[in-house]
Amino acid sequence: MTDPTSTTTSIDAALEQHLDTTQAARLESYQAFLRIPSISALPEHAHDVRAAAEWLADALRTAGVGHVEVAETGGHPVVYGDWLHADGAPTVLIYGHYDVQPVDPLDLWTSPPFEPVIEGDRMLARGAADDKGQVHAHVMAAAALSATRGAFPVNVKYVFEGEEESSSVNLAAWLETNRDRLAADAAIISDTGFFEGNLPAITVSLRGLLYTQIDVIGSPVDLHSGGYGGAVQNPANALAQIIAALKGPDGRIRIPGFYDEVVALTDEERAALDALPFDEAAYQASIPVTALVGEAGFSTLERRATRPTLDVNGIWGGFQGTGAKTIIPAHAHAKVSCRLVADQDPDVIFERLRAFVQEIAPPGVTVAVQFLGGGRASLTPLDHPITQAGARALEAVFGRPPVFIREGGSIPVTASFASVLGLPVVLLGFTQPHENAHAPDEWMSLANYEGAIRAIVRTLDEIAALPR
Amino acid sequence: MTDPTSTTTSIDAALEQHLDTTQAARLESYQAFLRIPSISALPEHAHDVRAAAEWLADALRTAGVGHVEVAETGGHPVVYGDWLHADGAPTVLIYGHYDVQPVDPLDLWTSPPFEPVIEGDRMLARGAADDKGQVHAHVMAAAALSATRGAFPVNVKYVFEGEEESSSVNLAAWLETNRDRLAADAAIISDTGFFEGNLPAITVSLRGLLYTQIDVIGSPVDLHSGGYGGAVQNPANALAQIIAALKGPDGRIRIPGFYDEVVALTDEERAALDALPFDEAAYQASIPVTALVGEAGFSTLERRATRPTLDVNGIWGGFQGTGAKTIIPAHAHAKVSCRLVADQDPDVIFERLRAFVQEIAPPGVTVAVQFLGGGRASLTPLDHPITQAGARALEAVFGRPPVFIREGGSIPVTASFASVLGLPVVLLGFTQPHENAHAPDEWMSLANYEGAIRAIVRTLDEIAALPR
Repeated sequence: MTDPTSTTTSIDAALEQHLDTTQAARLESYQAFLRIPSISALPEHAHDVRAAAEWLADALRTAGVGHVEVAETGGHPVVYGDWLHADGAPTVLIYGHYDVQPVDPLDLWTSPPFEPVIEGDRMLARGAADDKGQVHAHVMAAAALSATRGAFPVNVKYVFEGEEESSSVNLAAWLETNRDRLAADAAIISDTGFFEGNLPAITVSLRGLLYTQIDVIGSPVDLHSGGYGGAVQNPANALAQIIAALKGPDGRIRIPGFYDEVVALTDEERAALDALPFDEAAYQASIPVTALVGEAGFSTLERRATRPTLDVNGIWGGFQGTGAKTIIPAHAHAKVSCRLVADQDPDVIFERLRAFVQEIAPPGVTVAVQFLGGGRASLTPLDHPITQAGARALEAVFGRPPVFIREGGSIPVTASFASVLGLPVVLLGFTQPHENAHAPDEWMSLANYEGAIRAIVRTLDEIAALPR
Repeated sequence: MTDPTSTTTSIDAALEQHLDTTQAARLESYQAFLRIPSISALPEHAHDVRAAAEWLADALRTAGVGHVEVAETGGHPVVYGDWLHADGAPTVLIYGHYDVQPVDPLDLWTSPPFEPVIEGDRMLARGAADDKGQVHAHVMAAAALSATRGAFPVNVKYVFEGEEESSSVNLAAWLETNRDRLAADAAIISDTGFFEGNLPAITVSLRGLLYTQIDVIGSPVDLHSGGYGGAVQNPANALAQIIAALKGPDGRIRIPGFYDEVVALTDEERAALDALPFDEAAYQASIPVTALVGEAGFSTLERRATRPTLDVNGIWGGFQGTGAKTIIPAHAHAKVSCRLVADQDPDVIFERLRAFVQEIAPPGVTVAVQFLGGGRASLTPLDHPITQAGARALEAVFGRPPVFIREGGSIPVTASFASVLGLPVVLLGFTQPHENAHAPDEWMSLANYEGAIRAIVRTLDEIAALPR
């Protein structure tokens, strides 16, 4: 990778010099942000999420974004900030999220997840990549612009969410309510990353998500497996039976109607995907797993980015300790989620999943399926001027044109920005692949982080220069 | 049920009077025993298990059992005691266990499991029934005999185990080592209970047990279900698939060869079982479950006592918290156990289970099956003099002849007593059905507990009176 600190031609010299001289303070600020355990999914961390919001709002103010507020959503707050003094210039909405994933299993972290440490090129901490690192890069880009130019090249509106890792349950309503003041010409979402081999990339599609919980209830208390075994349904066996029935050995999901609305790739799209420099063996070795496994008839890249999935995210019931406890568990549970693709509707897919689970539920237990969240997949146009502006910025900073990729993850706001606000969106993200987002030892490449700040400035300059 | 305290004809008047006047102290002692959290399966309770052993040894000494020791086994100790001064009388080995099951889920207990409380006729605590209550009844019977007669009617050898709830992993070897000093004419095992409706019962068969753990390992860390979902095998889905394949919708276990050694019931045995006063609807309502479910072609009584089973005792993997975490778990696990019947060998069944699991394991994950313990089923002869002596004692104390039943649970020592020591065994147990052994709110009927003390004395008297 090109050393971003040497690409002084990509941004103006004063700004580059400012970034050079402020790096130590910048990394300290980054670490301070990472120290706040803003886990949005866990109610016991609600005050930490709010503390992170307040911290971020202060950082935006310090960065010269004149109007900043911590906006209530009914759940965790949105940090909103704007600078609107670039008369006649376009307005860009910038999105990231300051909440993070839970940290279990804690014992697999090399260092505590909320005590960030720098090891070589890596910042190690929960949120270092997803997504506090990228949010922080935007704040530092703003600070650099304020310090060196006293102004932004475009009007900017920052929307930093606190519930992205909790299915963005309140964001769509908040966007709807604030539709007028969020008016803009385009949106930049920074919550994605580079392609395998750390190739600069712009993501042109994201999968949607349906997140559910299946609860299987038997007797009110655990039963002695000797006294009752053989005479009653076992909720954990029943749960396994239900989960096993959801997917066939060919990797196809067996929920009736599940694939009905899936838009197939065109031959052209498939060819573009196949043309990406993807080393399947290296990918497998990097995880590592003993085999890559998925839906029959599709390549690994197709499976992970263009096909819907069904995964158990967690399962539990009965005795989990050392040794033996001879019980029939009173109940068993699983978190089951589907990644969705265009044009699957999470509400429709949930209803089909729920109905199918009820249909296959064995006798002697009570089975319920809870909806825990969902969002639609998104597809963004490759040829939009803002996408092309981002591509030019990436090439200028990182030394090669970006590849255009489809990502398997979900950023619920992407679909909302398009549907609620009617904005064109560019997914401009900077993390390296295999950065352990959602896993122990999450990390961010500091070269990518530093490059991100420069690429963000350059993207805003490129947008300002677009013909109106 | 006959009030045992009024059946003064069942034991001698002096002994009855002693029991009447010492009841308050006896219940206090019972509660003190229950307060020791002797959970043998959990390493962190090892010192509690030893404390319970020491407490029990002291109680035996106080009860007049002259020679008592806490005997090392390599695991949790055996409490051994003997009184061998009944010259010319038979020698009876008495077995119970002072260890208890784990207590989770703790939040379902009405009162803390190791703070015993008396509610009406019930002593509520972990171990109240299984098996500290029965062990304590034996100690109190010894104390009453010592106090009123200064002697026992027979020679007695007490073997109180501390690992019954951990598959008795060290007991068979300890019995083997101590074979000579354990020489006896018969054994009484008190770890069973009465039949539905609290009918006095003697258990004539017990199921065996095979306890295993299935471990499914994928990547070294949890993976983001967006970035990797669809491209890798999910260990939790794979585990569900494996478990589901172990049993068919007809309740038949699908492990090849699983039923090969099962001894079918004779028509006569089946008729005797069907003749028991068993109210299936009341049984279902007492649990309660929405349906009784089991192997096709067998009645509920047959299923729970005469047929082998396969149950998941616990399952876990990935995210179990509130809300959503979008991961593919790095690994998933299940405790899976089989109740066995004569003549299934736990080692042979384990090997067949292990081989089948490996055969059906899907690609992309590593699957291991651990052996955590096992014991053979046992069948005891109905017409043995000691069984008949126990039956007469139960009738004398509880006012009606006992029914002879087959139980679904396992007491590993039963098979060991027969095979290692060559002893005839009578399973003389006193708990009420539905006493929540292995579940929250375990309880013992105090009427049964008091009756047990009297029935134990009477059984020893009946054995002393047997023709030699």
